[in-house]
Amino acid sequence: MTLHRHVAKAHVPKDPDWEAKVRDSFKLQGVMGLIGATLAAVEPGRVEIHLPFRPDLTQQNGFFHAGVTSTIVDSAGGYAGHTLMPPGAGVLTVEFKLNLLAPADGELLIAEGHVLKSGRNLVITRGEVYAIKDGVATHCATMQQTLMTMYPKD
Amino acid sequence: MTLHRHVAKAHVPKDPDWEAKVRDSFKLQGVMGLIGATLAAVEPGRVEIHLPFRPDLTQQNGFFHAGVTSTIVDSAGGYAGHTLMPPGAGVLTVEFKLNLLAPADGELLIAEGHVLKSGRNLVITRGEVYAIKDGVATHCATMQQTLMTMYPKD
Amino acid sequence: MTLHRHVAKAHVPKDPDWEAKVRDSFKLQGVMGLIGATLAAVEPGRVEIHLPFRPDLTQQNGFFHAGVTSTIVDSAGGYAGHTLMPPGAGVLTVEFKLNLLAPADGELLIAEGHVLKSGRNLVITRGEVYAIKDGVATHCATMQQTLMTMYPKD
Amino acid sequence: MTLHRHVAKAHVPKDPDWEAKVRDSFKLQGVMGLIGATLAAVEPGRVEIHLPFRPDLTQQNGFFHAGVTSTIVDSAGGYAGHTLMPPGAGVLTVEFKLNLLAPADGELLIAEGHVLKSGRNLVITRGEVYAIKDGVATHCATMQQTLMTMYPKD
Repeated sequence: MTLHRHVAKAHVPKDPDWEAKVRDSFKLQGVMGLIGATLAAVEPGRVEIHLPFRPDLTQQNGFFHAGVTSTIVDSAGGYAGHTLMPPGAGVLTVEFKLNLLAPADGELLIAEGHVLKSGRNLVITRGEVYAIKDGVATHCATMQQTLMTMYPKD
Repeated sequence: MTLHRHVAKAHVPKDPDWEAKVRDSFKLQGVMGLIGATLAAVEPGRVEIHLPFRPDLTQQNGFFHAGVTSTIVDSAGGYAGHTLMPPGAGVLTVEFKLNLLAPADGELLIAEGHVLKSGRNLVITRGEVYAIKDGVATHCATMQQTLMTMYPKD
Repeated sequence: MTLHRHVAKAHVPKDPDWEAKVRDSFKLQGVMGLIGATLAAVEPGRVEIHLPFRPDLTQQNGFFHAGVTSTIVDSAGGYAGHTLMPPGAGVLTVEFKLNLLAPADGELLIAEGHVLKSGRNLVITRGEVYAIKDGVATHCATMQQTLMTMYPKD
Repeated sequence: MTLHRHVAKAHVPKDPDWEAKVRDSFKLQGVMGLIGATLAAVEPGRVEIHLPFRPDLTQQNGFFHAGVTSTIVDSAGGYAGHTLMPPGAGVLTVEFKLNLLAPADGELLIAEGHVLKSGRNLVITRGEVYAIKDGVATHCATMQQTLMTMYPKD
């Protein structure tokens, strides 16, 4: 038997307002304004966040700080999960694991989160981060994340 | 045989300038100035970073964003490792894993990193984050981290 | 303010049969019999599993295989969580992260799991693994784990 | 700018004996014989390990134990990395993180490891595990792993 590489399935949102709720929630994340991140794409089960370089986002070598990378990829994964959650539900990060593959060196950092498995309570996502330098993308980080669906109390 | 809980060993720095090099490097991290974090303690194999609350450090529910938590605990672990590295060596985060135990809700966030194992090339650390609210500390995150020693090329 | 190292709290089980249910469940894990692991200690929020060395538990260098280490520390963490779960609830591992600190070289491997945070749905544990060689314990692995409480359907 | 999903690159082995060295090392892993795992595919930067179901590989619900899943996916990732290492070099798992996506329920477990980033000292891999039940594959686990190249001392 030959095993084919895992292919992302088409996700069907349970909430007709999936896009608006993510865009509204993003505006409430004070830290996104502070660092200058923008919500570049919102699709069912997939979200992309962009972050232009600034000297006040760096670690000691002048590259984007790993915590800044974490900030945008955690939100990209979290909102990717949020697009698939039912109306009224909130999203909470349970944990994530980030491997840094290359220095986050570039004029722009792009984080993409997508859903691997969407369960009733838990959603598992993956995130990839790319540093764009002179227009060329380098895969600089990869994340594995667990989210929890917060159902409204009634 | 009874097994005793792991006890932190006394670490002996290889670099007599261990404290100055960490304090100097911290000043070069642009993001620490942006968010308002300070280096509260530097000891051999242990570093503490403090971060007072500000509305522009939050996620959608008004608590510290997990990425902000990551930012200070990644640096706390990284500098804890750096105190034990030889003169001239730089520190690089290979990966970290963060579990969020409780909302990071409080007037102050404290991240503590300490070294579990210090090898020639790799250093393994643990980080704990506490949210201080009305003076009471809640353990809000725990991290496991791998660092790499970057030896100078000669 | 001085921050004190996190101290394990006394855990109070919700299920009076916490010990028996863990011991009964352990017997159902076929793999524990296969590898020869035993349940050495069961306490509220803490479980210890012992595994004597055998040549058929090894990786290519003759040490315990990391997967064998995972097997006993995943169960130690899982059962540590299970002791605190309500009557009728099952335990499921959501994810774990294992750092290997030293070769698992010895005549005995000891895995200890203990609960860091016990929530209604999720339980976060830590695991430590020690290799005992000529009676001396070496800390050879550390784990961070997320468990889910599986409530019975009614 | 549209960002394309990460595509696996063609890997070029540095060691002409990449396949033989992996197959020889696999035979030295005592635990693979114990559990009945086989090396189903060895390609540059990609390895697949198969494991037929047996009742002595289970956890308390009769599915493959997470530690057994770890055992084969850790080795699949490790050997995927090993195919790309230079002659004489050994491979060591630094750490891995495993998310369990679904019960490992089936007549066969397939673990696939592939290299994400191959550096001089560190190699980052990803692993996917599928449970085959009645011929249908369910994606039951995903792993992110860090390996170290062990250069021979001279």
